[in-house]
Amino acid sequence: MHDSIYAEILTIGDEILFGQITDTNTQWIGTELTSAGIRPLRKTSVGDQAEAILTALGESLQRVDILIITGGLGPTKDDITKHTLCRFFDTELEINEDALALITEFFNKRGREMTELNRQQAALPKTCTYLQNDWGTAPGMWFEQNGKVVVSLPGVPFEMKNLMTHRVLPRLKALFDVPIIKHKIIRTIGIGESFLAETIEAWEDSLPAHIKLAYLPHFGQVRLRLTATGRDEDQLNSELEYEVSRVLPLIDKFVYGFDNDELEDVIGKLLMAENATLSTAESCTGGFVAHRITSVPGASRYYTGSVVAYDNAVKINTLGVPESMVREYGAVSEQVVTAMAEGARKLLHTTYAIATSGIAGPEGGTADKPVGTIWIACATPDRTVTRLLKLSNHRSVNIELTTTYVLDLVRKNIMQTAQN
Amino acid sequence: MHDSIYAEILTIGDEILFGQITDTNTQWIGTELTSAGIRPLRKTSVGDQAEAILTALGESLQRVDILIITGGLGPTKDDITKHTLCRFFDTELEINEDALALITEFFNKRGREMTELNRQQAALPKTCTYLQNDWGTAPGMWFEQNGKVVVSLPGVPFEMKNLMTHRVLPRLKALFDVPIIKHKIIRTIGIGESFLAETIEAWEDSLPAHIKLAYLPHFGQVRLRLTATGRDEDQLNSELEYEVSRVLPLIDKFVYGFDNDELEDVIGKLLMAENATLSTAESCTGGFVAHRITSVPGASRYYTGSVVAYDNAVKINTLGVPESMVREYGAVSEQVVTAMAEGARKLLHTTYAIATSGIAGPEGGTADKPVGTIWIACATPDRTVTRLLKLSNHRSVNIELTTTYVLDLVRKNIMQTAQN
Repeated sequence: MHDSIYAEILTIGDEILFGQITDTNTQWIGTELTSAGIRPLRKTSVGDQAEAILTALGESLQRVDILIITGGLGPTKDDITKHTLCRFFDTELEINEDALALITEFFNKRGREMTELNRQQAALPKTCTYLQNDWGTAPGMWFEQNGKVVVSLPGVPFEMKNLMTHRVLPRLKALFDVPIIKHKIIRTIGIGESFLAETIEAWEDSLPAHIKLAYLPHFGQVRLRLTATGRDEDQLNSELEYEVSRVLPLIDKFVYGFDNDELEDVIGKLLMAENATLSTAESCTGGFVAHRITSVPGASRYYTGSVVAYDNAVKINTLGVPESMVREYGAVSEQVVTAMAEGARKLLHTTYAIATSGIAGPEGGTADKPVGTIWIACATPDRTVTRLLKLSNHRSVNIELTTTYVLDLVRKNIMQTAQN
Repeated sequence: MHDSIYAEILTIGDEILFGQITDTNTQWIGTELTSAGIRPLRKTSVGDQAEAILTALGESLQRVDILIITGGLGPTKDDITKHTLCRFFDTELEINEDALALITEFFNKRGREMTELNRQQAALPKTCTYLQNDWGTAPGMWFEQNGKVVVSLPGVPFEMKNLMTHRVLPRLKALFDVPIIKHKIIRTIGIGESFLAETIEAWEDSLPAHIKLAYLPHFGQVRLRLTATGRDEDQLNSELEYEVSRVLPLIDKFVYGFDNDELEDVIGKLLMAENATLSTAESCTGGFVAHRITSVPGASRYYTGSVVAYDNAVKINTLGVPESMVREYGAVSEQVVTAMAEGARKLLHTTYAIATSGIAGPEGGTADKPVGTIWIACATPDRTVTRLLKLSNHRSVNIELTTTYVLDLVRKNIMQTAQN
């Protein structure tokens, strides 16, 4: 990797140093730079003090060619990044008309009044190239000096990501002679990282030196990321295809998708291919299953809705779960989760319906049904399948994992129905 | 703040730079140091290279008195961090008998065999103080030189946290004459960062030098964070109380809570105080409102459930929205969102009900109802209040913002009802 282009990431803001907000930006930027063939060398966070920012800036540019700065661009007093950049590049602020037009439009569209502070967001260092922020009022800035690049982006994650993807990375790839880096991600569910590693060990050891494998575990799933580095894009792509074709037979039944396809995307495609529809009945997941499904644009084509039956009365009155059944077996039981799924399927008129009922915690556990005891079900035109989960004491983790497992349950059942 | 004790945090590991793992350690350490009266000045992440670590170490100790290092101590990686620390402090490794005994016991307990690699984890730099790791095999290390402290901790979060809490922070407080740092967070909604700044400008300018203000904006909300540094805890608390009492009258109607209270927490407390209940009917938010409400432990005490009416047929058949109304005004209308809220309130038997209906995007917009056009409603025992939102083209942002605004709508209506 001696022909690597190196970059550093600088985040600005007391709130990050003091641990008052979670910094998800630098991880994302690190991943994107790496995939673009640019090697992150160091990450630094400093507070909202000019001197600290100036020092960090100077140090970085002595080590690397590219510095990505995020944060410190909001309209208020504690944001001093712009003035500090003026000092560093020995220039001054002036209103950028393009930026001003966009900010004005932003406020007009929302029927909101624009303050002088907002107007000042359009004031940019004279020597920088203006990077349009499609989703916010804080512009991005691109500086070039002695063949080195400094980019300053707002800290709001979706604004920063949009600027990086559409404005920054293309410019960096055009300016620097970066090697071609190709990724292929295989998404698995239902197998632990170490088992997966043992299953594919021989294949992993046989990978050529310019193709690296990374295990990326996340809430019951493990993504396998293949990274190929070289100079010939077509060759890299066919090499990746070949390696995928070699490993797939070993882990077939755990693979649900590739690259950026989340479970909810895969389910959507399967349902549309089958001309089928889906509904949900949620107790312990409290609407998170519906949220995951409806986070996919166009979900209304196959998803009709959900009954979040948090109160047993809702299970009984709206989903038609027999009151005697709840009394006899309890709300957290195979019988009730089955009746919930079948009730939702009938009430919401869908081909498939999934249901969850369990004890998310931290309270509500009993000796025979401890916190983390969760039943999930999938009702299809000809059967209802259930599964018992035994999860943790951690509420949000239980909600996240249960959602993932019930989405996988319906995925398997749609595929099975399609095959028959 | 010139009487502050400053610290830096250094994380070691390629996997953090390349974005392959989420670093939650530094946020936690930042919070703990801050509440211990030690000011984090900078955070740095470097890869697993000795030179990079040495440089970062040297730079930090020129700036601050305390450096907390995490990562790079696993059985496969400990060589580099420990050997680098030996080079920096001009010492050498030797087996620490206490550490060895603990590691041996760790493996005996689990009936697992101990490798030479594991044994080498007990090899520590001669000049360091051994910090016992109660949860793993990688020991913590405490170095003191010229009144400065360097601490090296394993990267596994629960091992690191245990070492920080029980071994490191008590030693730091004993060694350094730390000032007391107190935070007070005021949570606002419904006012932009810049308007807020102008509204409280006079107050902000009048703050004493030892009380700092920061604006923390997040999805339609702005948190105001007051940070007071001093020597007398009671005095700092009363000073913070005094400043809050001065600013509250200016922004009263935008403040929904303090410190760590999220909107959903505040609503839960209000509902329980009123002995009232809540249900939801969601179209464009697709279950996210229900998710936010049920993410609060014990929400089942006041939340009965939700109908996610993604398909108009569900709005009509389950929530009882008149079909003619949907035909005449469209699903995204004040009439329909009102009928949805009132329908949910009746169906789910609650004191209050909230509803959302809009075009989350990216598709589905029309000339008169562009993407981001969203109606929200709150039904109470004696009235139904609605509001029209004009948001962005960004689906997930629209879902997030709509959820926040509808939670605020019900919060206001519960308070209003309570006052009558």
